[in-house]
Amino acid sequence: MALWGGRFEKGVDQFTQEFGASLEVDKNMAQQDVAGSRAHARMLARQGIISDADQQAIDRGLADIAQQIADGTFPWDVNDEDVHMAVESRLTAQIGQPGARLHTGRSRNDQVATDIRLLAKDLTAQLMRGNVELRRTFVDCAERYLGVVLPGYTHLQHAQPVLLSHHLLAYYWMFQRDYVRLEAALKAADANPLGAAALAGTTYPLDRAYTTELLGFDHAIPNSLDAVSDRDYLLDLEYACSVSMMHLSRLCEEIVLWSSTEFGFITLSDSYSTGSSIMPQKKNPDFAELTRGKTGRVYGDLMALLTTMKSLPLAYNKDLQECKEGPLDAVRTLSDCMEIASGMLETMTVHEDVMLAQAQRGFTSATDVADYLAKKGMPFREAHAVVGQLVLYCEKHHKGLEDLTPAEFKAASDLFEDDVARDLDPAGIANARNTYGGTGSEAVRQQLAEARQSLQADEAALAPEK
Amino acid sequence: MALWGGRFEKGVDQFTQEFGASLEVDKNMAQQDVAGSRAHARMLARQGIISDADQQAIDRGLADIAQQIADGTFPWDVNDEDVHMAVESRLTAQIGQPGARLHTGRSRNDQVATDIRLLAKDLTAQLMRGNVELRRTFVDCAERYLGVVLPGYTHLQHAQPVLLSHHLLAYYWMFQRDYVRLEAALKAADANPLGAAALAGTTYPLDRAYTTELLGFDHAIPNSLDAVSDRDYLLDLEYACSVSMMHLSRLCEEIVLWSSTEFGFITLSDSYSTGSSIMPQKKNPDFAELTRGKTGRVYGDLMALLTTMKSLPLAYNKDLQECKEGPLDAVRTLSDCMEIASGMLETMTVHEDVMLAQAQRGFTSATDVADYLAKKGMPFREAHAVVGQLVLYCEKHHKGLEDLTPAEFKAASDLFEDDVARDLDPAGIANARNTYGGTGSEAVRQQLAEARQSLQADEAALAPEK
Amino acid sequence: MALWGGRFEKGVDQFTQEFGASLEVDKNMAQQDVAGSRAHARMLARQGIISDADQQAIDRGLADIAQQIADGTFPWDVNDEDVHMAVESRLTAQIGQPGARLHTGRSRNDQVATDIRLLAKDLTAQLMRGNVELRRTFVDCAERYLGVVLPGYTHLQHAQPVLLSHHLLAYYWMFQRDYVRLEAALKAADANPLGAAALAGTTYPLDRAYTTELLGFDHAIPNSLDAVSDRDYLLDLEYACSVSMMHLSRLCEEIVLWSSTEFGFITLSDSYSTGSSIMPQKKNPDFAELTRGKTGRVYGDLMALLTTMKSLPLAYNKDLQECKEGPLDAVRTLSDCMEIASGMLETMTVHEDVMLAQAQRGFTSATDVADYLAKKGMPFREAHAVVGQLVLYCEKHHKGLEDLTPAEFKAASDLFEDDVARDLDPAGIANARNTYGGTGSEAVRQQLAEARQSLQADEAALAPEK
Amino acid sequence: MALWGGRFEKGVDQFTQEFGASLEVDKNMAQQDVAGSRAHARMLARQGIISDADQQAIDRGLADIAQQIADGTFPWDVNDEDVHMAVESRLTAQIGQPGARLHTGRSRNDQVATDIRLLAKDLTAQLMRGNVELRRTFVDCAERYLGVVLPGYTHLQHAQPVLLSHHLLAYYWMFQRDYVRLEAALKAADANPLGAAALAGTTYPLDRAYTTELLGFDHAIPNSLDAVSDRDYLLDLEYACSVSMMHLSRLCEEIVLWSSTEFGFITLSDSYSTGSSIMPQKKNPDFAELTRGKTGRVYGDLMALLTTMKSLPLAYNKDLQECKEGPLDAVRTLSDCMEIASGMLETMTVHEDVMLAQAQRGFTSATDVADYLAKKGMPFREAHAVVGQLVLYCEKHHKGLEDLTPAEFKAASDLFEDDVARDLDPAGIANARNTYGGTGSEAVRQQLAEARQSLQADEAALAPEK
Repeated sequence: MALWGGRFEKGVDQFTQEFGASLEVDKNMAQQDVAGSRAHARMLARQGIISDADQQAIDRGLADIAQQIADGTFPWDVNDEDVHMAVESRLTAQIGQPGARLHTGRSRNDQVATDIRLLAKDLTAQLMRGNVELRRTFVDCAERYLGVVLPGYTHLQHAQPVLLSHHLLAYYWMFQRDYVRLEAALKAADANPLGAAALAGTTYPLDRAYTTELLGFDHAIPNSLDAVSDRDYLLDLEYACSVSMMHLSRLCEEIVLWSSTEFGFITLSDSYSTGSSIMPQKKNPDFAELTRGKTGRVYGDLMALLTTMKSLPLAYNKDLQECKEGPLDAVRTLSDCMEIASGMLETMTVHEDVMLAQAQRGFTSATDVADYLAKKGMPFREAHAVVGQLVLYCEKHHKGLEDLTPAEFKAASDLFEDDVARDLDPAGIANARNTYGGTGSEAVRQQLAEARQSLQADEAALAPEK
Repeated sequence: MALWGGRFEKGVDQFTQEFGASLEVDKNMAQQDVAGSRAHARMLARQGIISDADQQAIDRGLADIAQQIADGTFPWDVNDEDVHMAVESRLTAQIGQPGARLHTGRSRNDQVATDIRLLAKDLTAQLMRGNVELRRTFVDCAERYLGVVLPGYTHLQHAQPVLLSHHLLAYYWMFQRDYVRLEAALKAADANPLGAAALAGTTYPLDRAYTTELLGFDHAIPNSLDAVSDRDYLLDLEYACSVSMMHLSRLCEEIVLWSSTEFGFITLSDSYSTGSSIMPQKKNPDFAELTRGKTGRVYGDLMALLTTMKSLPLAYNKDLQECKEGPLDAVRTLSDCMEIASGMLETMTVHEDVMLAQAQRGFTSATDVADYLAKKGMPFREAHAVVGQLVLYCEKHHKGLEDLTPAEFKAASDLFEDDVARDLDPAGIANARNTYGGTGSEAVRQQLAEARQSLQADEAALAPEK
Repeated sequence: MALWGGRFEKGVDQFTQEFGASLEVDKNMAQQDVAGSRAHARMLARQGIISDADQQAIDRGLADIAQQIADGTFPWDVNDEDVHMAVESRLTAQIGQPGARLHTGRSRNDQVATDIRLLAKDLTAQLMRGNVELRRTFVDCAERYLGVVLPGYTHLQHAQPVLLSHHLLAYYWMFQRDYVRLEAALKAADANPLGAAALAGTTYPLDRAYTTELLGFDHAIPNSLDAVSDRDYLLDLEYACSVSMMHLSRLCEEIVLWSSTEFGFITLSDSYSTGSSIMPQKKNPDFAELTRGKTGRVYGDLMALLTTMKSLPLAYNKDLQECKEGPLDAVRTLSDCMEIASGMLETMTVHEDVMLAQAQRGFTSATDVADYLAKKGMPFREAHAVVGQLVLYCEKHHKGLEDLTPAEFKAASDLFEDDVARDLDPAGIANARNTYGGTGSEAVRQQLAEARQSLQADEAALAPEK
Repeated sequence: MALWGGRFEKGVDQFTQEFGASLEVDKNMAQQDVAGSRAHARMLARQGIISDADQQAIDRGLADIAQQIADGTFPWDVNDEDVHMAVESRLTAQIGQPGARLHTGRSRNDQVATDIRLLAKDLTAQLMRGNVELRRTFVDCAERYLGVVLPGYTHLQHAQPVLLSHHLLAYYWMFQRDYVRLEAALKAADANPLGAAALAGTTYPLDRAYTTELLGFDHAIPNSLDAVSDRDYLLDLEYACSVSMMHLSRLCEEIVLWSSTEFGFITLSDSYSTGSSIMPQKKNPDFAELTRGKTGRVYGDLMALLTTMKSLPLAYNKDLQECKEGPLDAVRTLSDCMEIASGMLETMTVHEDVMLAQAQRGFTSATDVADYLAKKGMPFREAHAVVGQLVLYCEKHHKGLEDLTPAEFKAASDLFEDDVARDLDPAGIANARNTYGGTGSEAVRQQLAEARQSLQADEAALAPEK
């Protein structure tokens, strides 16, 4: 209260105090707040705005507070309203008057913006590391399962046989794109608002380039109003999380499907399964379901902030206090879910035989039989119709295409010769698709090399952050 | 783990345990869980499925646990995974074998559905009480400010003068509709899933009507699959909260506008204002802004659950674990925000003079001048055009309509006579609108009586719930 | 432009005209606009505000226009901005001065609110009829498939056998609840704003009760500000649509799953399937997928309007123009999707043998085996653990529970006797669950009777609307 | 139907045909479809898969069709289901058998993905041009209004005086960031799926690098499953539109506020205003409100697609048909709204005197008075409290700080001397804030130069696209 009490005659009561307080969520950026204040004080001293002695007292006091926060010994008090007041009150209590000079040329508006940006950068970097871990899992699994064939699906109907490695690499590329979105979110956060003060800059000769350098920001924000009112970078972060959760929901949907009795493609490790309180036989893919379900909360976080930001006039409005919890929730959720997904993939058992058996069902060779005719000169559209009739014939006689006799083939078209049988083996069909990006084993090996290369590039770029 | 460990060879590790656990959020329905179990045990005994002695042991044990929960002495442990296991493990630890018979003819699937429905009913009733409090504030304020005139706005442009009481009652009716939505949510929750077991019902001769009666539900759910997979009632609750937050966002937008220097219509109490860490003069409507900003999180909660429910096959899926946190957040948010809104309204100072002065600006009498002509026989469309020209004339000569001479009026139309001046006073204009629902003081008094009547009806209906 | 041009010196250009125009979407409520105007004119005449002759000219003119709209001969022109101006301009062009008196004591603000409410009522009634059709399909199918057994699922794992009729009736109840939400939306729309004028009521002695009666509204809205700014009833309608689409997405997810080669439970009719341009064998459940996908657009419509309404001050704001398209889209989408769903269900082929064979797989009798022990006195928790061990034993020996010898059973527990084998038949297991709401055939027959009764009640209530 | 009818015995009826059809929305990408087919045919011929003669016939036929589409003479027929079938049927009707060879080595799955990506690139480039136009308006207006001072706000309370140019440039930077998001969306779309065929690649020796070059894509997509199932780039586009609409909603909120009688800061041009059908004086900021309201629909479009994509298994599912309408709606909305915003800004009248008068109200000099004390050695926190008391004193005596006598100042603190009066002029206060990014006129001139530079860089980059 001390921070702004001068003109007030009445205080707020306990309920409104708690309603307005953001301390609980703010604790997540306590270290960032201390770091921002230390940089601000160093700059004030270098510019001659406070004395070196004051700066040194402040710096020692804040270092001490940082230690208390890390130790868990810092005495949080809801009456401090937010983390900025908590830290500053404590500092002044510990070092006296120099503490009361710290807030010179600064406002909570630029201070909180600085703290959140530092936090957003840390959170995003954490997600980038988690993203790289998950992608490594996909690459490793793709390598492990080279040679395994399963049905490729469109409309959840058997379409054409594909390699499991190809299927897994499809996810690799989804998460590779998520990394790009995380990079964009990081770049959006990487700008220094400190020095914007309340909204208009200050009359003190601040050196914003110096705090930019001290805090490791890419550049100083060129407009003070924008500096205190912009939360786009949090939207960027929540959006990146949303798309990545959507990708995880697709993966987990497949894990759930593949774990079913009907599919039987995989068995999850006991470590990633749970049972039932009533049905003794149950082994449920709970973690895949929970991950899928958590997609909702991250979408909700994004929609919440978009709503909050709508129609806010410049510059700072208290509505913005609501911008913190959502991103923290989205980041924690995505981070956990990526780790869970990696764990499920690494520990699952793949039933190759079941996959292969299914890869033959559902007339998955039909396209190749049509291509067979097309390559003999029949326009593809006609070939498609001929094979469609053959499939109908097979269904009525409860046969697969591989069960047809040469005579039955010839009855459908004169162009069929005995060699058509060569085109009916699932592994052969899959492996024949060696156009770039195709499911043929050569193409997949090339793709795997590309994936590993892009992974290594991102790992290398991340290394210095650790 | 003990609850379903029979077929498992490996346990889940600490990280996955915590990822899958819902204990923290479940604590909010611990009392509901105990109540559900006590009713289940009583029914089991009455049906002869467990012995009376076992039932009595269970009941005493659960009463004891309920006390521990209320006291805060219940030993929560994240390894218990959820509240059901926590309570049951504790019970069995305390009373031995009878505890192990409690889960007969029941599954966690119907158990959790029962707990959430009981919780949803309690939460909704709490919101209904808060809603009635807020509506009472509007009615009281409307009565207090009878006679105060302010500009009515469309497009945030001055339109016609209205009574402040009329304006406040507009909000009364919005929240009255929210009450209807809450009633619907309550009714949706008020059905008993207990006895559905895992998904299919049981082979035990359960008496679902008896647990329905014991737990105070309206009826038993007629389909066991639906009973364990339905969460519509939580959507209904979140939706009711969303619309009510939207209404609060409109109110708070106006409180922020009215508190501005430019409007100057009201001054909020110091108890509902905060200051600035840098600008000593600031007195900010923080609580109105924060309420407005929190609209986002409640919309987000709704969108989250809608997303989670999408495309889930029957019956129970673990995704549903995500259904609990959102409603709790939405209810707490709305409940707090209604209380804040009541407080702001009750304690604000209304500047009647400023409102009245503004009510005359912006040609708010123009419609009545046009009606004046229409009542003398000019088709309204022509009258509208004539007055439009008069307004343009006034703007160019920096006058209001009330500043025009009779000659200037007559220049615009022969139909104007000296009595037109009588139609230019804001209070007179407002009070002349006595069609049902209009802003005239008679109409507003009638409206106030209707509002108070509807409020009393709802208060009376709520009374027994307390 | 003529409607409000008096004070304007410049017009808007073509681009802004088109940007601001709502004519295209307004055409959907042209008949409602005409009906509202006819009622308004009758009331004006009865109150002596316009002459009977004028009223009769207006009424004939509007009847003529209604016919033109129905015929498709009405000359729409984007320069008319909205439907109200289009109709009124046309009327005045046709009948002269009496047309210019129609807008007496009325504003576009209450006029558009009246039109939208009339439209919302019509649309909701249409959805209620569609909802009843769909529920009838579920009841009919439930009756048709009595006796068919399939695996009941939790976590998409086989849980316990259930009757297909029971599964279908679970959807019946979901849509029955949707009907309740539609009723609530209808009730919310059923209030008359006409007479609120721009925002404050009017000085004309309007008889709002009379237009309420003429237009078939339940009551007149008691506050004019609220009357022109409230769009809650459209949110209620969009919300009802959203939940119903969510239910359809669950149904369609199952239709897609059940149509897969792996499940093989149903074959959709050719009329509800499509093929592939490249794969001749494909028969895709396109319509189920498209319905599932359309869930997104309806959620989006809801979120759009919630966002638009956020933070709008009283009373009318142009933002509200955006409230019309979303509900129209949501209603059309849900209406079509319900019809598609009915069609798919009525024409699909059910493969009973496949369902039954699967109903035995996945140890679906395990709960009953545990109950067997519990009924012999073993506490259920212990019985659960014993059977869990049996399942693990079976998995390692590639057996089902039904393949175990009496000796193997006895090795697990002395309580097993030869009669345990009786508990292992899927149909027997399903049919033994005759608690109210259970999947036993008696319970399902009772449920079916309840469903048919609730359906008939709603059909009866709807009848007079047709 | 001809495209996949071989195995079907029954057709779909008219209702289901229309339900499933996407032709209406597909028309927007008809030219992209033709371009994709021409490139595919050229590649097929170059690889020897079809003959040169066939390719030339196809190319001439498609050029002809492109012309018909451009002319509006192309005969669309809903029975063609989608644009791909419409074009191909027409081609084959016109050129015979060579047309039936076009679909060799291709599926509608990779074809539609190609079309949408080409369309997305075009739409994004259009938005980038609109974005640059709008930013130019901000820069031009900022230059025009150099010297105009208005109150800067936080919490919609007067905070400190700022330059109007500074305020306008805050928006410049918001839209500059939106440009970065559009660039990211463009880059995400810029990858070639053609050659992925249905989902697995093909057995034809396609040259994907060649179609990549012909169609102007950056690279070929490395995984065929991902190529047909990825719609991330449309989410990126919708997300970029959502944030940009949020920025416009903030701008329009301010335009509405500033146009009110209470603020009186600006008058919109008649070309960007509308009137009332009942109130002759009204001049409403309809276009600003409508833009603000349209924020909802764009958020809704984003939420719709996020929902649709959730939990879809690989690879193509018909749900994806729903991905097209939303982005088209979002792009059209944002494009129109940016143009409207530019128009409003360029044509509005700014009331400098009103802005300046308000800039003095609300104690906007208080921070500088506190800084005055701090610069004399008082710790800032103490200075803040002293000035807070002064403000309270002023309020009680209905004075501004500028009305205080030297004695009154000195009574508050000995440190005040006569020169404090120099710090109370709004323009002086604003112009003293020349830290980088501050509102001082020097800082703003520097900012303007930076803005213009970034604008020119983006204009230069866009130029070749035109």
